[in-house]
Amino acid sequence: MVTALATPTVFRLVLPSLSSSKNNPTMCWKGRSNSLNTNGNNFNFASHRALLVKMQTKEPPEENDTEKRQKELNLNPRQLDLITDTFGGKLLHGGLVLQQNFLLRSYESDPDGKVSIEALVNRLQESTINHLQSLGLQASGFGSTPEMHRKDLVWVVYRLQIEVERLPTWADVVQVDHWFASASGKRKECDWLVRDYKTGETLIRATSLYMMMNTKTRKISLEKEVGAEMKHVVFKSDPIINKAKKKLQHLDFETADYIRTGLRPLWNDLDINYHVNHVKYISWMLESTPRSILARHNLSVMTLEYRKECGWNSILQSLTKLKKDGTSHSTEDGGLEFDHLLRVEDGSEILRGRTKWLPKLI
Amino acid sequence: MVTALATPTVFRLVLPSLSSSKNNPTMCWKGRSNSLNTNGNNFNFASHRALLVKMQTKEPPEENDTEKRQKELNLNPRQLDLITDTFGGKLLHGGLVLQQNFLLRSYESDPDGKVSIEALVNRLQESTINHLQSLGLQASGFGSTPEMHRKDLVWVVYRLQIEVERLPTWADVVQVDHWFASASGKRKECDWLVRDYKTGETLIRATSLYMMMNTKTRKISLEKEVGAEMKHVVFKSDPIINKAKKKLQHLDFETADYIRTGLRPLWNDLDINYHVNHVKYISWMLESTPRSILARHNLSVMTLEYRKECGWNSILQSLTKLKKDGTSHSTEDGGLEFDHLLRVEDGSEILRGRTKWLPKLI
Repeated sequence: MVTALATPTVFRLVLPSLSSSKNNPTMCWKGRSNSLNTNGNNFNFASHRALLVKMQTKEPPEENDTEKRQKELNLNPRQLDLITDTFGGKLLHGGLVLQQNFLLRSYESDPDGKVSIEALVNRLQESTINHLQSLGLQASGFGSTPEMHRKDLVWVVYRLQIEVERLPTWADVVQVDHWFASASGKRKECDWLVRDYKTGETLIRATSLYMMMNTKTRKISLEKEVGAEMKHVVFKSDPIINKAKKKLQHLDFETADYIRTGLRPLWNDLDINYHVNHVKYISWMLESTPRSILARHNLSVMTLEYRKECGWNSILQSLTKLKKDGTSHSTEDGGLEFDHLLRVEDGSEILRGRTKWLPKLI
Repeated sequence: MVTALATPTVFRLVLPSLSSSKNNPTMCWKGRSNSLNTNGNNFNFASHRALLVKMQTKEPPEENDTEKRQKELNLNPRQLDLITDTFGGKLLHGGLVLQQNFLLRSYESDPDGKVSIEALVNRLQESTINHLQSLGLQASGFGSTPEMHRKDLVWVVYRLQIEVERLPTWADVVQVDHWFASASGKRKECDWLVRDYKTGETLIRATSLYMMMNTKTRKISLEKEVGAEMKHVVFKSDPIINKAKKKLQHLDFETADYIRTGLRPLWNDLDINYHVNHVKYISWMLESTPRSILARHNLSVMTLEYRKECGWNSILQSLTKLKKDGTSHSTEDGGLEFDHLLRVEDGSEILRGRTKWLPKLI
């Protein structure tokens, strides 16, 4: 687990706080068999721009469902405009989905000319914070609700799963849809759908599980009042990704194929609490994967389990093991799978990971 | 020197190429004595939003000067709209100044809650590339003009000077004005003025000198045709900063006060040519400055001399020396000054730097 993001406590856009609601719309994905196929890469459920807003509620919404929800959430048109002006986005489904556009920058390219996965995950986090802010549910910079803020609670990332269809390139505009897939007095799940703004092509699907931690005891906490605050903003939908259930594999120096030691946070990697932004861990985790492999493959799937915060003075080790199926390293589709571990020199685990890579088409 | 930026070769916005012009407007800064005071921090020449576009030409422009220039640059209103849509900016002074707004993101905060200087310098580079693109002068991703592209030439950063009045925080929108202060068949100078979009307050002034390098011989080149392409887009103005003239100081293990070794580029630091984005060098350069000093001071001035490209397998050393004036380390205004050196293990120099820091007001 790790503190989610670096953020100061002041935010300029002030929106009203949440009022109660009994109406939780349900969303399902338009596609084969009405649920998301996460195994194949040939499944593109948003292949046309016209599909961009075709998230359908399972039970047809009432005529005035969106307006009703806006009223319940205490949002008025002027505030919705403010959200557009401030974030370049808009609230859909009565506020339950934030749709935001991001222009990708030249300095975010990786050696392949694509925008790095780290840059994109940063955008996902940004959209979550912006969504909470848009709904008036953010009382401090870490995405804490007013109730959490009163009780010294913050969200910490526990699990992140990403499926990549294609990474965009700079000057592309990506359209990120964010919604809360579940929320309770202990945890929340965020789902994201990233599409090419111009074509509507699905680029990335992602889901993340956050736990609530007390910043004084550093322990996972349960607060029913927070569940009450959050439950009104949950957008019930089919899972964007089949959630991983098994814990990821442990690695050590004996079982790892590749090891990179001596990794240290730079001053510029630290957030306002002198913690490392959890996106940085991805870069370190991948450092032990041979660069010759990274250069010849595209990331397809990434699953991460955050286990501990990385201190600003930590010296880290990155371990990677190439998975073998019998005598072959390649999967059926010609891909490669890796287990990863990021740990401190004393052996305490920071992050476990699993990635799948597909060969580049030349 | 270092290759300026990571960029692929394709860009979506296609604008017409430059036509000839004999008209080079001259700009001077509105402020005390009509030239920029770079020594004091009490100089704020854009303290109100209304001043944002008050860059005045020394000789009053003709009534139709802007329209005339747009015509010369072959820009029409539809294309100007495209620039706004694509970059969130606009061309001023008939195309000679690109004014762009950037919303700063939560993940760009430093431990102080401010947006890091690295994140801001990335925005400066982005605005230069966007400006060239807007004018139809970019033939490849590195900001190379059509003539440069034909002759395997790229721009490499040679010198960068930055003066910081105040670093913004996340969710602030900064307004970046970019223009070419000079250009010839060998070099170009870019100037930037960064303001708080909301208040007009000046945040940062910066200037950068680029040299033209042949990618095959790796030597500095002279091409008159490039000078001819670029001279029409130069915006003559008083210097935004007094340009440094003296070469920065050499450092070695004997003369340095602080040393940090074992710095290595991550895969995610590499651009499409397997070079390190030059902004990354700033982070490494500052790594040898004690974190206790960074935590208690604000960056005020930064001067950088890029001397060599950093390879993707390089292991780097960062050296820093605290300047002393007689027996005191502090400058008259209570600040601290440092000399920096970033070098490869074999001793070859990557970057020389000088920074000045002012104590934080508690």
